[in-house]
Amino acid sequence: MTRASGQPGQRAYFVTDVAAYSFDKLVIFGVGLIGGSLARALRERGEADGARTVIGVGRTSASSERALALGVIDGAAALDDDAALRDALAGADFVLLAAPVAQTQPLLERIAPYLEAGTIVTDAGSTKSDVVAAARAALGARIGQFVPGHPIAGRESSGVDAALPDLYVNRNVVLCPLPENAPAAVERVAAMWRATGALVRNMTPEQHDRVFASVSHLPHVLSFALVEQILNSPDAALKFSFAAGGFRDFTRIAASSPEMWRDVCVANRVALLDELDAYTEVLARLRSAIEAGDGAALEAVFARSRVARSQWQEQRASGVAGSDASK
Amino acid sequence: MTRASGQPGQRAYFVTDVAAYSFDKLVIFGVGLIGGSLARALRERGEADGARTVIGVGRTSASSERALALGVIDGAAALDDDAALRDALAGADFVLLAAPVAQTQPLLERIAPYLEAGTIVTDAGSTKSDVVAAARAALGARIGQFVPGHPIAGRESSGVDAALPDLYVNRNVVLCPLPENAPAAVERVAAMWRATGALVRNMTPEQHDRVFASVSHLPHVLSFALVEQILNSPDAALKFSFAAGGFRDFTRIAASSPEMWRDVCVANRVALLDELDAYTEVLARLRSAIEAGDGAALEAVFARSRVARSQWQEQRASGVAGSDASK
Repeated sequence: MTRASGQPGQRAYFVTDVAAYSFDKLVIFGVGLIGGSLARALRERGEADGARTVIGVGRTSASSERALALGVIDGAAALDDDAALRDALAGADFVLLAAPVAQTQPLLERIAPYLEAGTIVTDAGSTKSDVVAAARAALGARIGQFVPGHPIAGRESSGVDAALPDLYVNRNVVLCPLPENAPAAVERVAAMWRATGALVRNMTPEQHDRVFASVSHLPHVLSFALVEQILNSPDAALKFSFAAGGFRDFTRIAASSPEMWRDVCVANRVALLDELDAYTEVLARLRSAIEAGDGAALEAVFARSRVARSQWQEQRASGVAGSDASK
Repeated sequence: MTRASGQPGQRAYFVTDVAAYSFDKLVIFGVGLIGGSLARALRERGEADGARTVIGVGRTSASSERALALGVIDGAAALDDDAALRDALAGADFVLLAAPVAQTQPLLERIAPYLEAGTIVTDAGSTKSDVVAAARAALGARIGQFVPGHPIAGRESSGVDAALPDLYVNRNVVLCPLPENAPAAVERVAAMWRATGALVRNMTPEQHDRVFASVSHLPHVLSFALVEQILNSPDAALKFSFAAGGFRDFTRIAASSPEMWRDVCVANRVALLDELDAYTEVLARLRSAIEAGDGAALEAVFARSRVARSQWQEQRASGVAGSDASK
């Protein structure tokens, strides 16, 4: 375990005013944009809300060195180092998993031997039903310690260098409490996210997965598919050379991480296929109208969509969610 | 005909330095964002490149009053006023049609009786095969006077108030010269667009329609379709309330004009259906991979798309097209 300060083997942090804090130690598995922004938010949004100590755990200790150098975390541990991992998890109030969802089960299996009874584990995964299943498999009877979560925030850039202390301000964070969770544990996770400026909302894992299959996962698939279709066409270069603003906006999310979206599509495939099939039906209806030259039918759909999209934009501008989340 | 200055029945403009100008009189049918930006560009990008006089023609004289008040045009005429229309077209070097493509034939039929042999007509329509057919039907043997064009530029806002003198700087303008066009006529239209800062590129109408069906018309249909699909679902309100940045970018173009996109879809339906069918095939392939949990197949497509999208963005940033066209 690498420390920002202090002697090897000693706790590198010190506790001064316990009563003012909801916790003293947060361990983040995967200190990238999401985990790094949580750490920065808790540390920089006033000491009263701040985490005393944040430890980052990565696949190698090197992967957390950058976060350490940036001052985002106080200490870094490598996942494959038993002693460092035990040390990192000792006395932890919170563990946040901020790694691709497919890693949930192996990560929790790795954590389990060192997980103390007083530690609450939460996550930041984009899908929830599969994460809950993975957590049940890994934690067994201790599943009550795991409170599933999903902060709805992101940026086009990723990695700890892109982490921002205000990434979560006015963003939604979804929690999907399990029947086994103590209400106090759920409330502590909610309080942690609220301290970052986020708005916490509860859903079931199934609701979560259906909603995000629709408004996030499906658009990503559709956007990747458009670029793929153009690439497959004989005049791809000519087409790209004339692509302008409409194409730019529509395909911005096609520059997203292939690994992340592969995992999301596989993890949430049941809900995603439902949405994709419903979408394909709408598309078939529009196809018929185009083929028939039925301008009135097309205009009715387009006008309805425009009104709904404009209302969404207005509500967003005036309220809850901010304007630059890219997730 | 309303004039900015001068006596009724007299030409309200005066000619001072003919040699420096490629033309003296431009008549724009539909002075909105596209037509208004051309007028402003020609007038404001240095007098040497500027149009001497710009006359706007609208469905009513009221529709051009705003353009007149803004100083975008020198005179305004109502389309249904025979005398004003004759006056507007007398001695015109150029006519630009900047109205929805479905109006091309009726507009040209209305113009034809007053169209002088020395006037070149061009347009700004988003589709070209249908526009050429409409022009042939309306102009008959005088089709050589019509040089089809399409400036690839736009903004989210429309109307003459949104018109900008630099809208076309570094934008592509496609010309689709006809066999009947004199090369000098094509060159004069090209020179007019180059004077706005645009880059002029030639294509056949068929090439044009295929390219824009792919990179513009199809994404609009797909974006409208997503909003429609969510609206049709039982939990639409919940879904919209969690939609974030990915949804925002993907559906920005679903706030576009329903009338314009209805016309485009109908006018370009042959090419659009080809692209839509090819897209539906890609989607079916992705569906199979999702259903099979075939992460490798998904990742391969997503990775290919990301590389292509990123390369497109880099080339765009470094070169030809600017970054804020919304068309």
